[in-house]
This record gives sequence, structure tokens and C-alpha cells, in this order.
Amino acid sequence: MSHTLEELASYVGGKVEGDAACVIENVASLESAGSRQLSFYTGGKYKQALVSTKADAIIISEKHMSLSSANLIIVDNPLLAFALIAEKLNPSPIVSGIHPDASVDPTANIDASAYVGAQAVIAAGVQIKPGVVIDASCVIGQGCVIGENSRLHANVTLNDKTQIGKNVIIYSGAVIGSDGFGMANDEGRWVKIPQLGIVEIGDDVEIGANTTIDRGALDNTVIGNGVKLDNQIQIAHNVRIGEHTAIAGCVGIAGSTTIGRHCTIAGGVGITGQLEIADNVHITATSLVTQSISESGAYSSGTPLQENAKWQRNYVRFAQLDDMAKRLKRIETEFKDKQ
Amino acid sequence: MSHTLEELASYVGGKVEGDAACVIENVASLESAGSRQLSFYTGGKYKQALVSTKADAIIISEKHMSLSSANLIIVDNPLLAFALIAEKLNPSPIVSGIHPDASVDPTANIDASAYVGAQAVIAAGVQIKPGVVIDASCVIGQGCVIGENSRLHANVTLNDKTQIGKNVIIYSGAVIGSDGFGMANDEGRWVKIPQLGIVEIGDDVEIGANTTIDRGALDNTVIGNGVKLDNQIQIAHNVRIGEHTAIAGCVGIAGSTTIGRHCTIAGGVGITGQLEIADNVHITATSLVTQSISESGAYSSGTPLQENAKWQRNYVRFAQLDDMAKRLKRIETEFKDKQ
Amino acid sequence: MSHTLEELASYVGGKVEGDAACVIENVASLESAGSRQLSFYTGGKYKQALVSTKADAIIISEKHMSLSSANLIIVDNPLLAFALIAEKLNPSPIVSGIHPDASVDPTANIDASAYVGAQAVIAAGVQIKPGVVIDASCVIGQGCVIGENSRLHANVTLNDKTQIGKNVIIYSGAVIGSDGFGMANDEGRWVKIPQLGIVEIGDDVEIGANTTIDRGALDNTVIGNGVKLDNQIQIAHNVRIGEHTAIAGCVGIAGSTTIGRHCTIAGGVGITGQLEIADNVHITATSLVTQSISESGAYSSGTPLQENAKWQRNYVRFAQLDDMAKRLKRIETEFKDKQ
Repeated sequence: MSHTLEELASYVGGKVEGDAACVIENVASLESAGSRQLSFYTGGKYKQALVSTKADAIIISEKHMSLSSANLIIVDNPLLAFALIAEKLNPSPIVSGIHPDASVDPTANIDASAYVGAQAVIAAGVQIKPGVVIDASCVIGQGCVIGENSRLHANVTLNDKTQIGKNVIIYSGAVIGSDGFGMANDEGRWVKIPQLGIVEIGDDVEIGANTTIDRGALDNTVIGNGVKLDNQIQIAHNVRIGEHTAIAGCVGIAGSTTIGRHCTIAGGVGITGQLEIADNVHITATSLVTQSISESGAYSSGTPLQENAKWQRNYVRFAQLDDMAKRLKRIETEFKDKQ
Repeated sequence: MSHTLEELASYVGGKVEGDAACVIENVASLESAGSRQLSFYTGGKYKQALVSTKADAIIISEKHMSLSSANLIIVDNPLLAFALIAEKLNPSPIVSGIHPDASVDPTANIDASAYVGAQAVIAAGVQIKPGVVIDASCVIGQGCVIGENSRLHANVTLNDKTQIGKNVIIYSGAVIGSDGFGMANDEGRWVKIPQLGIVEIGDDVEIGANTTIDRGALDNTVIGNGVKLDNQIQIAHNVRIGEHTAIAGCVGIAGSTTIGRHCTIAGGVGITGQLEIADNVHITATSLVTQSISESGAYSSGTPLQENAKWQRNYVRFAQLDDMAKRLKRIETEFKDKQ
Repeated sequence: MSHTLEELASYVGGKVEGDAACVIENVASLESAGSRQLSFYTGGKYKQALVSTKADAIIISEKHMSLSSANLIIVDNPLLAFALIAEKLNPSPIVSGIHPDASVDPTANIDASAYVGAQAVIAAGVQIKPGVVIDASCVIGQGCVIGENSRLHANVTLNDKTQIGKNVIIYSGAVIGSDGFGMANDEGRWVKIPQLGIVEIGDDVEIGANTTIDRGALDNTVIGNGVKLDNQIQIAHNVRIGEHTAIAGCVGIAGSTTIGRHCTIAGGVGITGQLEIADNVHITATSLVTQSISESGAYSSGTPLQENAKWQRNYVRFAQLDDMAKRLKRIETEFKDKQ
């Protein structure tokens, strides 16, 4: 799998500066790249690495090209060009067929071009479309539908009737379609409310390792096209996530909350239930969202990290904050009265 | 599976207002319900949906009955009545037998009425009581006991000797009985402390997807009857959770902490180790609990979400809070001295 | 499995006070111990339990020995001695061979002394060294290497090419080597960046249940020797964790952050990406780290838990903190001008 720099530049709509016939076999980081390897530069703290890299070629934007003496592919968005070329040079192997150690219900409908790995379980009525890869030990519950070219890595669990779009990637340990956490209280005892909805996953979605997405209570939980979910995210019943929103690891979203399109939610954020979050909202790490957000923009909560001894003193003061505010108001008033 | 409104009202101890012979086939949300469907109303923001619903019948409390012109089942607790009727109209299918692709140790004792799914592993000495369902790919370690009518969804792991009560539901990816995080420090190196206790789960417990409950170090980790745990919760060794306490997703509880009965702990809460939390304590989302709580009531920590630019300014000031408090005190004193 | 107190004292380099011939069969907590059982005391709140224990013998330090009338093993570090003796009295059973229900690729190289459990999947080119235990339903991806005497509990997933050192323990549900969360943005749509690095795990590492460690993007994700990771931790691509660092449950570490040696990170901490954390840094529970830490020491963020009604008042004031700071400054200035 090797290409000339010219071919790769053409593939991403860039232009070559330097030796267009230079042969590239793979991509690498600036620090580790060597002969026949291509790296990329997006600015910032990697400037020294750019100068000292042994990469044969660099993907770079026009404004940074003077910083490098290597062969260059010049594009507007070097990271995007890098992503596309890295994929071209490292295509996923094509596999098909059903491993003899898989357990497949005779009523499942599995396209001949799809793959089902060892120890996987495909239950009754499942539909698996062309080009799908179901890795080892996945469990696909009754009536699930998995769209074209989607890939489930090992040990993914889809509960009954989950619908997965096209070109979806689900990583190991993810659980889609478990019952939501719905209960009625009967004089102190909790009574389960049956969870009768499903999970609908759009096209081009990624779902990280050990992420959980609960089925809807009555209506469905819906993940829009192009949504990217990192690892260890919890998405409760009847949440709806708008298209092209990206959510980092360890985020929890409570029941029936709707997230807009093109949002970014950083790691560890909590979002309580029944909220409406607008499009293009960006929430910084470990913030807690307890009210709907109707305006796009960046939002945060939390306090700064300090050395423990200093923090202790401020931490204690937080509990006196209302008192401090009242005292400040009082002294302002008294001082003014004195004038 | 259809019933008259009269039959359903009688089942939940309610009374019918309207057409008692109305035939109901299933439940649905106010927004999506149609002919032969029953919905419910508990007040609040769904008032408009109640007015415009096409449901044939509504479960409602007496105080709200004038808001609807549909057929009604009138009860004191509409959500509870809904839960019971939804379950009646959507019973779990009864299954039994051992799937030929399961791997069952000959010394395991599995009741004939129980079910073991494909690729499941049942180790030596396991006892599985009547009516239990073990879904596909579960692993049940040596000597585990699973009480009557409990259900383990696909891909649950029970480590050795875990004891599960009756009518327990465990969702996919949950891991019960892993070793606790116990170590001694030997001049900078960590030495593992063997974890010799087990996990005891009471009756009527629910355990969410990808939740983890560690075995005790010497004594046991104990989850009381009726406890409900959402997804992605971490419960460390020797934690004890009192009966009918409900814990939402992404909560972490550190070692040897005891939680009381009838508590509610919202999503993302952290509770440090060795604490005692009283009965009827309610903790709001993402709070951190670092001291025992001896009085019932609601508790919180954390700061409000703001637009990032405003938050930045307050965030910086938090680190000056003790200084601000001292300065406020000083000016109060100086001002008073001036009087 | 029984030993005299003399033998056990000698094993941990301690000395006996009392009956050296006393026979010990196992360890237990102070509260539950009885005849032929050994417990330990490290001080603090267990003093009453020490006095009332029915244990035949206690591991204790010299300074506390006067508190107990039981037979004693006197050592400098009672917890460490307890860990070693508990392990000696409760050795892991030795197993070997390949369960007939495992699925093993013929190109895998599995040492005859290793064990592979039921329904486990061993892919092409895997190398499993002597003494390794792979429990039921684990999936070991292509080309993984697992070092001597390491143990993977049931349902662990290793993605392709993961390298595991010696004496490593990985608990159920852990996922090692999933793709990192790397994307380029193409006019609002996210394009996946192939994740071409691997995960390297050193020797003597523990990885908790449902913990996830992503493979590197170009270079590798590296977990140093002796690192201990609790449950439900998320470690992103290209993170590097220094030797003998211990991390408690529910911590999230974002991409390309480097953590030093001998650090302790408490539960629920978030650490953002691209940071450098020095050696011997200790971070308290649920803190958020957004900047590099160059000095060893203890660090914290967050606010205290309060009764909800009191907290509400302080919570609201947080949003006014910058305004309060400015008003305080103003009145200080005005007051000074008056002097």
C-alpha cells in the first residue's frame, strides 16, 4: 500500500510543494516519522517537532508552509486531509462469512457479504445488511436491524429491536437498548415501569467502548446522523441527540433531555433530565447542566484546581458566600449613609 | 392481549369515568397514543399534550380529571397504576431450557423452569433457582446462587460466589463481584490485598447496564432489598446500601461506606469511603459527599452553569475567596471602629 | 492450608508476641474473626473492634501492641503484612489447558501451562505466555501478547495488538485498545482519524472492571509498571501513566496527557488533554485538572456539601462572585480615601 505524494495530494484536493514523486507508505507522528512516512502540522506546540521531524513529507496549511523544509501537501485543513489519507493507507480488512463458533438463529437474515465473529449470538428475526461486521462475542437481540457497512467491535450488546443505521461503528462493551431507569413509588417501594420504546441510531454514528444508551420508555431514544460518542457515556431513556454533535467520555445525560445539532460536550459533563439544549452549544469539562439552554455558545460550571491547603480555605468560605454577600451589601449601605 | 377499561381499572383499584367497556390493547405516551391505547397524566408540563391526545383512555388523579374529555381510570397514583397496567399488557415472554450453545458445568444445579441463553457460561457449583432467565453470553462464576425469577440480560458477569436474591434484574455489561481496590504500600510499590468477601444482592433489586459492584475485602458488600441502581454506577468493596434506596447513573461510592434506606442519589454523585449516610437522604446531581450525613434531608454541592466568559471571571475569584472574606472582615472592623 | 503464627511471622519478617504455636487457618476482619483466624490493626476508628475481637491473633505495629491481649505478629507495616499473609493463605487455584468451548485460532501460540476458559475467543497470531489465565468469554484480538502469569477475568476485551506485561490482572468488562476519540471537522461533519497506535501495559498492573483504555492515534498509549487502576476509569489515546501510580474509580483522563510516577488520583477526577502531571501528585476526589502540574503535592477543586436550602443561597452567589470582588475592592478604596 504505497502512493506518491502527488497521488495523495490529489486525493485530498491539495497541492504538492517539493518532490511530487516521493513515495509514501504510511502516516506517523512528527516525532516518530521516518523514511516514506507522512505527518501533519496544525500549529501550536508542535512547531519544534515540525522542524526536527524526519518525515519525508508533511501535510500543512499555506500559512505554515515556510516552517518546514520537507516535501509538503498544502491544504486548507491539514487534520482533515491527514484523516482521509491515513484511512486510505490503512483500510479495514474486508471480511465476510459466519464463524463456525457463532450462534445464529435460523430466522435471522444475514447478508452474504456480512461477517459474524466467533461466539457471537444473533437472535431471532435480526436483519444484518451488506458489509456489516459483527465481531466476536457480540450479542444481537431479537429483531435488531443493522444497516450497511456498520461495524460492531467485540463484545457489543444490542438489546431487542435496536435499529442501527449505515456506517455506524460501535466499540467493545457498549450496551444499546437496556431498559431505562423508570419507576413509580408505591409507599416507599419502587415499582418498575416497563420500558417499551427502542433505540434508533442514525447513519455515520460512533459509539465508544462501554457506553450505554437506554431504550425509550414509551417513545424512542434517538441518536442523530453523524453523532460521535466517546467511551463510558450514559444516555438515558428518551434522550434525543441532534446530528453531528460530539460528546466526550464519561458524560451522563438524564432522561428525556434533547440535545441540539453540532454541539460539543466535553468529558464528565452531567446534564439533568427533561431539558432542551439548543444547536451549537459547547459545554466545558465536568460542568453540570440543570436548566435548558436556548442560546448557542459556550457554557461552564465548576471551580479552579488549587494546592489542597489553599483550596481548603476557599472551600470553607464557599459555605459562607451568601453571608458574605449580605455583609458586603450592608457595609456598602452603611458607608453610603455616612457620606 | 386486550382488556376493557373496567378490567384494567379494577386491576389497579381505580374507578372508570366514561366508557367502561372501551377496549385497551396497549399503553402509549400522550403524544403518540391512538385508538385502543391508554396513556397517563401526572400534571405539570404535559397539560397541553393531555388536551390534544388521541388516546382512548387516560389514567389520572381525581384532581386533574376535569382536564380531560377521554375515558378515564381515576386513581391516587397515576404513575404507579400506569406501571402496573403497562406490565400486565406487556408481560415478559416465558422461556425455559438450556440453549445448546451454552457452556454449563455438570456440577451446576439449574432448575428445569430456568433458561440459559446461547454462549452463556455456567461454572461449577452454580445454583439457578426456578424461573430464572440467564440471557446470552452471561458468565456465572463458581458457586454463585441466583434466586427465583431473577433475570440477567445478555453479557452480565457474576464473579465467584455472588449471591443474587429473588426477582432481581441485572442489565447487560454489569459486573458483580470483581475484586475491590485494596492495596498496601510497600515503599512506593502497591501490593494487592486479597479480596475474600462476596457480594450479596437482596430481593427485587435492579442493577443497570455496565454497573460494577466489587466483592468485599473480608466481610461482604451488601445491596438491600428493593434497591434500584441505574447504569454505570461504581460500588466499591464493603459498601452497604439500605433497602429501597434508588441511585441514578454514573454515581461512584467508595469503600466501606454505608447508605441508608429510602435514599435517592442523583446522577454523577461521588461519595467517599468509610462514611455513614442516614435513611431518607437525598443528594442532588454531581454532588460530592466527603463526610457522614446523620440527618435525613436534601444535600448538594457545586456551582451554577454560566456562559463561559462570565463563569471565567467568577471561577478566578473562587481562588481569592478566603482573601475576600478576610478583607471583608477587616473593613467591617475598621468601619465599626470609625463609628 | 494452615500455618503456625511463628511461620507466618517469619514469612513477613515480623516477631511473635504470645503463643507462637497458635495455628492460623485464615484471615478475617476484627469484627468477624474467630478461632484460628488472624486479623490486623492499623489504628484509628477500629480501636474498639481491636479490644473486642475474638481473633486468635493480630498483626500490629509495635506502638499499638499494648492495646491488644491477643497473640500478635509485630511488624512495621501491618497492612502490608496482612496482604502478604492473606495471599499466602488464599492462593489462586492453578489451572491450565483450553476449555473445549473456547474458540482458538490455529495460529495463536498458547503456552501449555496457560488456561483459556469457556466461550473465550483467541484470534490469529495471539501469544499467551506461561501461567496466563484467560477466563470465560474473554476476547483476545489479533496479535495481542499477554505476559507470564497475567490473569484476565471473565469478559475482558483486548483489541488487536494490545501488549500486556507480566503479572497483570484485568477485571471483567475492561476494554483495552479501542479506537481513541479522534476526529477532524469537515464543515460541521466529523471525519474519523484512524487510530493506528496500540496499548502497552507494563508488569504488575491491575485494571479494574469496566475500565477502558484507548489505543494510541499514531504513537502508543502506555501504562507503566505497577500502575493500579480501579473500576470504570476512562483513559484516552496516547495517555502515559508513570510507574506505581494508583487511580481510583470513575476517573477520566483525556488524550495525550502524561501522568507521573507514584501519583494517587482519587475517585471521579477529570483530567483534560495534553497536560503534564509531575511525579508524586495527589488529587482529591472529583477535582477537575485543566492545567499541567509541575510540583508534587496535593491538589483539589470543588465546593462543600451543604443542606440543599443553604447551598442554594451560596450557589446563586457564586454567579455574583466577580461582582462582589469588584464591589469589595471599590469600598476598600473609598474607605481608604476617607481616612
